[in-house]
Amino acid sequence: MSEIKQITSLQNTLVREILVLKEKSRERRKKGLFVLEGRRELQLALKGGYEVVTLLYCPEIMPAKDILEMKRILNDGTTLIELSPKVYQKLAYRATTEGLIAVSKTKDHSLTNLALKNRNPLILVAEAPEKPGNIGALLRTADAANLDAVFIANAKGDIYNPNIIRSSVGCIFTNSIAMGSTSDIISYLKEHDISIFCAALTASKNYTNIDYTKGSAIVVGTESTGLTYDWLENSDQNIVIPMQGEIDSMNVSVSAAILIFEAKRQRDFSTPNAI
Amino acid sequence: MSEIKQITSLQNTLVREILVLKEKSRERRKKGLFVLEGRRELQLALKGGYEVVTLLYCPEIMPAKDILEMKRILNDGTTLIELSPKVYQKLAYRATTEGLIAVSKTKDHSLTNLALKNRNPLILVAEAPEKPGNIGALLRTADAANLDAVFIANAKGDIYNPNIIRSSVGCIFTNSIAMGSTSDIISYLKEHDISIFCAALTASKNYTNIDYTKGSAIVVGTESTGLTYDWLENSDQNIVIPMQGEIDSMNVSVSAAILIFEAKRQRDFSTPNAI
Repeated sequence: MSEIKQITSLQNTLVREILVLKEKSRERRKKGLFVLEGRRELQLALKGGYEVVTLLYCPEIMPAKDILEMKRILNDGTTLIELSPKVYQKLAYRATTEGLIAVSKTKDHSLTNLALKNRNPLILVAEAPEKPGNIGALLRTADAANLDAVFIANAKGDIYNPNIIRSSVGCIFTNSIAMGSTSDIISYLKEHDISIFCAALTASKNYTNIDYTKGSAIVVGTESTGLTYDWLENSDQNIVIPMQGEIDSMNVSVSAAILIFEAKRQRDFSTPNAI
Repeated sequence: MSEIKQITSLQNTLVREILVLKEKSRERRKKGLFVLEGRRELQLALKGGYEVVTLLYCPEIMPAKDILEMKRILNDGTTLIELSPKVYQKLAYRATTEGLIAVSKTKDHSLTNLALKNRNPLILVAEAPEKPGNIGALLRTADAANLDAVFIANAKGDIYNPNIIRSSVGCIFTNSIAMGSTSDIISYLKEHDISIFCAALTASKNYTNIDYTKGSAIVVGTESTGLTYDWLENSDQNIVIPMQGEIDSMNVSVSAAILIFEAKRQRDFSTPNAI
């Protein structure tokens, strides 16, 4: 590693670039870079095979031994930069974080890049999810269930939005995430003999009366408009959670979790049956 | 109903009182009043037996026929007040709402006020839930599952926080909610022969290997610190959702929903068996 640079000016070019990367999906796509914060997120990203380009830390906030520990796990080519507290506060989401920011290369989440290791995969598909907090909660559930993949269909933006990274508590780095159009994802599922179970109110069966032990995709839409016609037309079976309240409006991440864990129950919570 | 008053000044006493009621839990408790917004919330509150003291609406935003409809369903003693658009915008959470704000009496949520109608109730207990969004999501799930009651133990504030009302999409008005100390709630459950199943990692069984068909309380703590010792000491059986990910950290409202709907599955999704 080369000598460590220091940034003390808020006008520094890299500082301004990082602010734009945090803000703009288009900039992240153009440069193939995104920004993450915190030690745990960094560790998970590295473990997940992400290539960290630049590590920026504030020695006044981060203890020296933690800096050494971080350096040990970094890729060889990572540039290290020290930030003054003023610059760090400008870049960080909250002043209470751990004094660490990193710029990493994004991954290619196209369907052709996805390698399913399991003969009978269990997959979550979320069509056009809107709120970063919902996407984060879906990814947390997908991690806990050790799903084979999470597909995001007709995404509204990229997944490297700082609010998604934060609300996923790092699960963005632990899941196999693929993104594509609804029609490409449907084709992929059909080619791989994965049954499509759409969460929908019409022509649907109680979700507990379905066999999820073969390759299964659980497909959820938005809270406001549900799934598009393409999904319903290609559904092997629509499924519904019986509701008996006055309002019957569960959060999308809550509904998805109920469906996923019914599938897990039927599979005896066994870990994926890798080939 | 008496003649309709009008408020056009931001300095009006009632305007300032409403702003304080929205802001301060202490003020809501002292006056026994809270503020709600929107037609759907108003309808649900009235249906849930809430006594609406004052209805404030902006004729420039709310269509005349909707105003008439609202008047029809109000309690007899409700005071009606017209707001200028400027005053409405000052009071409303967002300018995009429906032109309707109401001041309502709070309810008494003490345990002694709770009437369980079901021989074998299914109850959710949330200890010290922190985020309004999580409380809202829990109440949405509780409504959809038609739970017999939701207990909030050692609450951090009152439930009439505007962020809780909003994130519950009105489910705050449709659930039977009781609040009390952890020790009072434990005593209540024991007196009513309701089994206590604590979501906890120690000495716990897989949540699907438990019989929830008798009177059951599913008890969840905070994401950061879990349940207090009192609950664990009085637990009939600790339960756990098997997790197999890297991070294994689900949102508390997601975990609670998985547990509640396993109980619903075992009960064949039957509606409560009222006496």
